Amino acid sequence: MERVVIVGTGLIGASVGLALRAAGFEGTIIGIDANHEEGLEAKRIGAVDRVVAPVDRAVEVCATCNVVVLAVPVMGIMNWIDKLGPALGPQTLVTDVGSTKLAICEVARTSFLGVGKARFLPGHPMAGKESGGAAMAEATLFDGAMWLFTPMDAYETNLEREWRAWVAKFGCRSMDLDAARHDRICAWVSHLPQMVSTAMSAMFDDEFAREPAMAEEFRLIGGRAMREMTRLGASPFSMWRDVAQTNMVPIAASLYALEQRLAHLRENLKTPELREEFIKANRFRKGQ
Amino acid sequence: MERVVIVGTGLIGASVGLALRAAGFEGTIIGIDANHEEGLEAKRIGAVDRVVAPVDRAVEVCATCNVVVLAVPVMGIMNWIDKLGPALGPQTLVTDVGSTKLAICEVARTSFLGVGKARFLPGHPMAGKESGGAAMAEATLFDGAMWLFTPMDAYETNLEREWRAWVAKFGCRSMDLDAARHDRICAWVSHLPQMVSTAMSAMFDDEFAREPAMAEEFRLIGGRAMREMTRLGASPFSMWRDVAQTNMVPIAASLYALEQRLAHLRENLKTPELREEFIKANRFRKGQ
Repeated sequence: MERVVIVGTGLIGASVGLALRAAGFEGTIIGIDANHEEGLEAKRIGAVDRVVAPVDRAVEVCATCNVVVLAVPVMGIMNWIDKLGPALGPQTLVTDVGSTKLAICEVARTSFLGVGKARFLPGHPMAGKESGGAAMAEATLFDGAMWLFTPMDAYETNLEREWRAWVAKFGCRSMDLDAARHDRICAWVSHLPQMVSTAMSAMFDDEFAREPAMAEEFRLIGGRAMREMTRLGASPFSMWRDVAQTNMVPIAASLYALEQRLAHLRENLKTPELREEFIKANRFRKGQ
Repeated sequence: MERVVIVGTGLIGASVGLALRAAGFEGTIIGIDANHEEGLEAKRIGAVDRVVAPVDRAVEVCATCNVVVLAVPVMGIMNWIDKLGPALGPQTLVTDVGSTKLAICEVARTSFLGVGKARFLPGHPMAGKESGGAAMAEATLFDGAMWLFTPMDAYETNLEREWRAWVAKFGCRSMDLDAARHDRICAWVSHLPQMVSTAMSAMFDDEFAREPAMAEEFRLIGGRAMREMTRLGASPFSMWRDVAQTNMVPIAASLYALEQRLAHLRENLKTPELREEFIKANRFRKGQ
C-alpha cells in the first residue's frame, strides 16, 4: 500500500487520513471532496497530502492508487462504485466506511470482484460524532472502536490483509459478519438510537413553537439525561437520509417494536408490570 | 442551622451531607436510614456524624433538629411528612429532594405550614446517577446542577434563606417554579428520558431471550449511541415507581407524544418529511 485516495474528506475520511499518518503510514494520501473547502481543510490539518481538483479527474486519480477509501454517505458510495467499476483494475482495493452494507454490497457485486476487476472490502467503523466535517477530524477517532467488515467472499488478497492491519493499528477491534446481519444489528444499536434522538428533539422543537417559555425552562432545567437522549438530534440529514433509504425495513421494525414497548409501559405506569420492565432493563444493562 | 438530619442516606442524602461539609458546615449532621448498612456507610464516608438506630426513634430525633432533609423516594417522603407533621414545631424547616412535587406539596399542606407547625420548602436537585447508594455519594454531585424549589407560599423564613444559601454553596444554580409546572417540565426533560431508556433496554433484553447470539453482538458492536440511550436502564425501580405513581398523567402524555412522533418518522423514512424532522431536531439542539 503506497498510494491511498480518500473519497470524501469529512469527519470520517479526514480522520482515516490522520489515523494512517499517526500509525506510521509513509505513502501518499490523496483527498477528493465535492466540497473543495472540505478538501483544503483536510490538507491543512495534514489528513491528506494533496487534493484533486476538479473532481472530474477523480476517477483517473483513483486508478493510480492501491487503495480507495470511500468515505461519503451511503448513496454517494454506491454512485462512486458505479463510476469506479469500469476504471479500476485488479491491482486496486476499494473499501468503504458506509453505515449500511447490504445495498452497497449489491451494487459492488456487479462493479467489482470479477476477473480483471478491482477488489472490494466493505467496512464500517463504529465511530463518529454528531457534528461532521474535516475540522472535527481526529487521529484517535477510531481508537478503541469496532471496525466491522462484511466481506463478499472467503478469498482475501494481500492488500486486504494490509488494510485490516492498518485498521488494527488505528486501535480498532474488528469483526466480520454477513451484510444483512450487519444491517439488522446496526438498526438496533445505531439507527434506532439516532431516530429516537431525532424524534425526541423534533418533538421538543414543536413544543417550544407552541409554548416558547419552555425553551428557556428546558435549557435551565434539563440535565445529563436530556442531553444524552437528544445529542444525536444534531446529526446531519445528509448522512441519515441514505441510511434510512438503504435500511428501511430493519429500521422501521425496530421503531415499531419500540413504539409498542413505550405504549406498554405507558399503560402500566401504575401496575406491577412496570417493575418487570425495570427488572429486564436492569438485567440488560448489567450484561452490557 | 446547627443540627441537620438527613432522612435517607443513599446517593442523594449522603451527597448532601458531604456537600454540606465541603461547603464549611460545622454543625451536627444526623443520618436516618431504614437500611442500617446504608446509614453506616454514610457515616464511614463522613456524610453524617452519627446514625439513629432503631429507626422508630427517628421522629423524636427530627424534632431536635433545625433542618430535616427528606431524601427517600417520593412515596417515602410523603409518609415521613405524615409522621413528622404532629411532632415538629415552627422552629424546624423540613425540605426534600423528591423528583415530583405536586403530590408531596398536597400532603405537606395539611401536615405543615399552619400556626405552630413546621415550615416546608419543597426542593429537587437535578442531579443523580443511574446507580444509587451511599457508596456512590460525592461532595461535588450538585456542583453546576440546577436545584429547583416549588415554594408553597410567598413567605420565607431565615432558615429557608439559610438552606438556599447552602444549596448555592454546593455550586448549584436554583430556580423557583410552581409545583404543577415543575412536574410537567420534569416529565419532559427527566421522566420521559428515563422511561425511554427503560423501555429500550427491556426490549433489548427480550430480543436477547429470543436470539441469544445478539447479546454478544450488541456488546461488541454497540457504541456511544447505544450506551447513552440505555444508560438509565440501570436505574432502580424503587425510585421510579414513586415518580410514575405521582406524575402519571404528564408522563403518559409525554410517552404518547413520543410514540406518535416515532410512528410519524417510521412512516416517513423515505419521504421528504424525514428532512423536516432532522431540521427541527438540529434546531432544537442548536438552541440548547
